[in-house]
Amino acid sequence: MTEERVYTAAVLIIGNEVLSGRTQDANLSYLAVGLSRAGIRLMEARVVRDDEAAIIGALNEVRARYDYVFTTGGIGPTHDDITSESVAKAFGLKLIRHPDAVRLLEAHYRPGDLNEARLRMANTPEGAVLVRNPVSRAPGFQIGNVFVLAGVPLVMQAMFDGIRDRLKGGRPQLSRAVVSTVPEGLLAKGLGEIQARYADLEIGSYPYFRRTGYGTSLVLRGTDQARLEAATEEVRALIRSLGGDPQDEQPG
Amino acid sequence: MTEERVYTAAVLIIGNEVLSGRTQDANLSYLAVGLSRAGIRLMEARVVRDDEAAIIGALNEVRARYDYVFTTGGIGPTHDDITSESVAKAFGLKLIRHPDAVRLLEAHYRPGDLNEARLRMANTPEGAVLVRNPVSRAPGFQIGNVFVLAGVPLVMQAMFDGIRDRLKGGRPQLSRAVVSTVPEGLLAKGLGEIQARYADLEIGSYPYFRRTGYGTSLVLRGTDQARLEAATEEVRALIRSLGGDPQDEQPG
Repeated sequence: MTEERVYTAAVLIIGNEVLSGRTQDANLSYLAVGLSRAGIRLMEARVVRDDEAAIIGALNEVRARYDYVFTTGGIGPTHDDITSESVAKAFGLKLIRHPDAVRLLEAHYRPGDLNEARLRMANTPEGAVLVRNPVSRAPGFQIGNVFVLAGVPLVMQAMFDGIRDRLKGGRPQLSRAVVSTVPEGLLAKGLGEIQARYADLEIGSYPYFRRTGYGTSLVLRGTDQARLEAATEEVRALIRSLGGDPQDEQPG
Repeated sequence: MTEERVYTAAVLIIGNEVLSGRTQDANLSYLAVGLSRAGIRLMEARVVRDDEAAIIGALNEVRARYDYVFTTGGIGPTHDDITSESVAKAFGLKLIRHPDAVRLLEAHYRPGDLNEARLRMANTPEGAVLVRNPVSRAPGFQIGNVFVLAGVPLVMQAMFDGIRDRLKGGRPQLSRAVVSTVPEGLLAKGLGEIQARYADLEIGSYPYFRRTGYGTSLVLRGTDQARLEAATEEVRALIRSLGGDPQDEQPG
């Protein structure tokens, strides 16, 4: 195997509503799947409050550490929407009213409806490139390696789909999943041995409790298809050796 | 209002499956709601990979910063379950086989079924206090201000419910929510003015797009009931002044 460049990312979820339990975040899993398909490895995610110091602190840590950062939330018109100014401060850049964003909002709202609060949605750090919002028009933006996206899932998804061609990734991660009713405590030893022989793959073991009974899902990930198939076949053989009946599953 | 002690917490979600998008985390919102009821403010959450350095780095940051930390995931019997040893290393403590945990496992498994992999689930940092698992027996543990819980939601919830009386909190956050079809861009100015007058409360504005139409939910949180009621009434009046019909909503 040749050494290849691994592209990495973090997600920064901004919003008190996720930390209060009011809202169950739905953006992380969408971004995780999309990044994986783009050959970008999501290394960590953080949820922070609508608090300038918290946003700046977290953003500056992750943008230095990973190739890409995707933020969600806090770009609406109300007082608790402070993502744009916080991102500008994190970069040490001036916050400007982006002329193209103003034009988008002018085209969207009826004359007289584009008030000062709504115009705030055109604020970006100086030098930002807009991210299109086909749903409700108010754009996101990209500054450096940071993509600032909406929090409403429908809008966030449309924004992310629109920027995929700006993202550079490595070979996409491939995955296989095998499920059986063998408990993970019995699989553990053999599975650890397979993982040791396939250090280039990532093998995860996930117990489940379903109405139909309990068992274990084993998920294998890697970029080399032949290695992945070989390891998956060893996992199936391990399950059979323990009296189980391995079933292939959608890896998800 | 007298100045009161605010109790804070962070949640650390450990698991590649959440970052690959395979699993949608369900633990954060459960913990968020439970902590809020206990008068503890959830300040941030992080999702990290099954990677020792990542777990240690994140844990040492958040345990120094907040009163409590709750970790989920990575305490099973397989090779990818590395939370206990990572937590021990983060604290600079020896990893021991906890005798009470061994007894719990011995009582749970049939003779001969308690193999070395399963015994690993009895490992804790030296000095840890066990957290009971009424579902599948293998316990979590508490060390210092860190509670190490399971990743499977059913088990995590039972563990958390069992430790609530170990947690010291301040006055519980109260909340009110008012919903209307007035867009947040029209509410923004007046809402910002209300927030400025009620700096002790936290007022959030959340647009929604539902099958029945779109609108805005306004959520107010704070510990002083009279202030909360007064601010909520001002929000209702603001909505009416803009031609809307404010409806009370479950704040969630």
